[in-house]
Amino acid sequence: MKPAIPKGTRDFNPTEVVRRRYIFNVIRNVFERFGYWEIETPVLENLATLTGKYGAEGDQLLFKVLNNGDFLAKADQKALENRDSRTLLNSISRRGMRYDLTVPFARYVAMHQNEITFPFKRYQIQPVWRADRPQKGRYQEFFQCDADVVGSDSLIYEAELVKIYDEVFYQLGIPIIIRLNNRKILFGISEILGESNRFPHLATAIDKMERIGWQGVVKDLSSSGFDEPTLHRLRDLINIKELPELESQFVEGSSGHIGCREISTVFKYLQGVDLNCQIIFDPALARGLTYYTGCIIEVATETGELGSLGGGGRYADLTGMFGLSGVEGTGISFGAERIFDLMTSDGLFPSTVDQAVQVIVLSLDKNCLEHSFQVTHKLRKANISSDMYPEPSRLKKQLKYADNLRAPFVIIIGPEELIAGMYTFRSMQSGEQTSLSLDNIISLLKQA
Amino acid sequence: MKPAIPKGTRDFNPTEVVRRRYIFNVIRNVFERFGYWEIETPVLENLATLTGKYGAEGDQLLFKVLNNGDFLAKADQKALENRDSRTLLNSISRRGMRYDLTVPFARYVAMHQNEITFPFKRYQIQPVWRADRPQKGRYQEFFQCDADVVGSDSLIYEAELVKIYDEVFYQLGIPIIIRLNNRKILFGISEILGESNRFPHLATAIDKMERIGWQGVVKDLSSSGFDEPTLHRLRDLINIKELPELESQFVEGSSGHIGCREISTVFKYLQGVDLNCQIIFDPALARGLTYYTGCIIEVATETGELGSLGGGGRYADLTGMFGLSGVEGTGISFGAERIFDLMTSDGLFPSTVDQAVQVIVLSLDKNCLEHSFQVTHKLRKANISSDMYPEPSRLKKQLKYADNLRAPFVIIIGPEELIAGMYTFRSMQSGEQTSLSLDNIISLLKQA
Repeated sequence: MKPAIPKGTRDFNPTEVVRRRYIFNVIRNVFERFGYWEIETPVLENLATLTGKYGAEGDQLLFKVLNNGDFLAKADQKALENRDSRTLLNSISRRGMRYDLTVPFARYVAMHQNEITFPFKRYQIQPVWRADRPQKGRYQEFFQCDADVVGSDSLIYEAELVKIYDEVFYQLGIPIIIRLNNRKILFGISEILGESNRFPHLATAIDKMERIGWQGVVKDLSSSGFDEPTLHRLRDLINIKELPELESQFVEGSSGHIGCREISTVFKYLQGVDLNCQIIFDPALARGLTYYTGCIIEVATETGELGSLGGGGRYADLTGMFGLSGVEGTGISFGAERIFDLMTSDGLFPSTVDQAVQVIVLSLDKNCLEHSFQVTHKLRKANISSDMYPEPSRLKKQLKYADNLRAPFVIIIGPEELIAGMYTFRSMQSGEQTSLSLDNIISLLKQA
Repeated sequence: MKPAIPKGTRDFNPTEVVRRRYIFNVIRNVFERFGYWEIETPVLENLATLTGKYGAEGDQLLFKVLNNGDFLAKADQKALENRDSRTLLNSISRRGMRYDLTVPFARYVAMHQNEITFPFKRYQIQPVWRADRPQKGRYQEFFQCDADVVGSDSLIYEAELVKIYDEVFYQLGIPIIIRLNNRKILFGISEILGESNRFPHLATAIDKMERIGWQGVVKDLSSSGFDEPTLHRLRDLINIKELPELESQFVEGSSGHIGCREISTVFKYLQGVDLNCQIIFDPALARGLTYYTGCIIEVATETGELGSLGGGGRYADLTGMFGLSGVEGTGISFGAERIFDLMTSDGLFPSTVDQAVQVIVLSLDKNCLEHSFQVTHKLRKANISSDMYPEPSRLKKQLKYADNLRAPFVIIIGPEELIAGMYTFRSMQSGEQTSLSLDNIISLLKQA
């Protein structure tokens, strides 16, 4: 049997694991410094929890787990006879695999509401599964990385989430621009246009602008009956990038006006806080999900290539679907897979990330090999990541091993070295060799 | 809908996550200091990879994922008509969920053999899924934690793995005993007894001794035809805890003799290496898996309660099932879930593990709240994990929040504090308050 893995899944080799871990650790450390704490939910959820939460298409893309044992015994016989896969499903599968982190989070909050202190700031970095057609950069099993705060309407959290993006991408070495808008402003614009009843359609069209351009938006909206003067007015409004100017277009107390005041408040919090990246107000930012009700955020590289590296926003109701109403919140997510691809292609990982062991102990004969275990032990005790070659093979072969493992140094123990207690310490890069005591070698490696 | 999760699965709240992470970090750091590097394999594997690897019972316990779309359209029609769940399976499911870390590792080595430098030292810490009946301490979704080195027959790795156990459990504060044996010794004993053709049966029976006692073993073996003199001889042999004494029972060059020499070699490597725990030779240690062919290791608490906290051993053939022969190796695993339960019940987690934010900034009015974001920002910039209460609520309510979050300190900003630039710094434990500049507070917190 030729070994293989399912399409859309990946193995991560040691280099990929340390690189991915580097990204997650940067994010994790910022989250925790900002008071967000990690939860983990199971991969398996009841299908009742997942179904109907992601639209009809999402339901199709859920991975369903077959009930164990003789599943046909309890199957819906009529659905079986009719070869009706969709109906049969309910009787042969009761669990599915996590599709995103939001629904499990909502389920978690509703289920543990009595143990939680609100506002509840949590983050989650876990894989999710979607039966999308795999393609370059799109997988069926991939990681999501979300931070949310629920149980508060304070806009101080929007400012905080902006600063988290700023901090994380600065530490990763990725120059970004953060765009801010508010769904209330978009709704206000739809009111000005007299199209508030078609607001969802309008927002969805605007959301696609980056991809299909303004002409594409015009085409989309014209075909659904928006007339030319309306489209002109729309373009004029979403091109106003000055917040006070746009605010003046709205009647005081209207949705658009409130939205502008909210963005002002966020900017006010951010005053006096040093930021590494540019934060811009952009009334043309829509974000697809109808789920958002307040401030929305999106991150892209400075050049705008690659699309979004993350995004988020405020929502009015996280847990209503699980019977707990009145829980509003705001959150962001990081496009972890895209960040990984970008950092790989742009060579943004620090070189220290890839280094495995610092030194490998090589032995020229069997006695030396026995001794090498003690030498390695002393190195490890001094907190130096180290290894020994397990056989007294030809030196060339052992050096090749050290080279393959990208060890910067080796220690060579020969019969004379063993007697003298002085070892050959060799730099793999320069080939330079010195005879040193183990204590001296340890001091040198500690400094390296 | 009442929110719930499938039986046998768990949510981990922030306290559980940091505690589990603490254990995994201790293990991870030791692994990497000892030159083991992490790989990750996907949760989803092809069923062809998993099926037939865990025995008939294991196949039953595999979680199978239903093919997406109209799965009945391509289903085996005859199996459908016969309501034959087992046969139908192959045509409606082609993927399953990881059942352990060994088979995916074997698949990984075979699949990536040309990219791997041997000896290959890898570790893996990932969840696995088994449809076992859930009970206290047994889950359907749980973590495994394995380290292996493959592509070498050197016994230096057995010594290394023993030292890893010693180091990890010492750091976790769990007093342990490590028992060593060799499957070749057990085979040698079966040869002495003239029962080498029934060796697997013998090994399985001895493996159960800890659970069922010697009388249980006698009962088991008698019923399958082992006679009384043989059982007496068996008892005498497995009670010889002195390695040279047992070695003298075997003919030179026999399996039992080689096994004893191997154990001697491991002990020789361990000489001159300081160990925190006791390592004992125990010819009554069997370990169930037929898979092991050389040295075997098992870890238990000093008191012996709770059973095994980890175990492992040498195997002759990891990847034969995937068409790559001649890959031998040795490995260990940590019973991560059991270690977590033990550390929880015995209160072994350092108190610092549970602490979330170090300080929370409280505001007495709206102006103070705006200012609090800058204060929090400066704390975070100084690498102090901190948070702010998001509203100028009643102080009592804000203090309650800080208390719930177990923050050791709060900073209170009132209107006068705002003007003076001096803040009330309060210890939550003692209730003691001092008026300090932010710089002084930061210095104090840095020392704490």
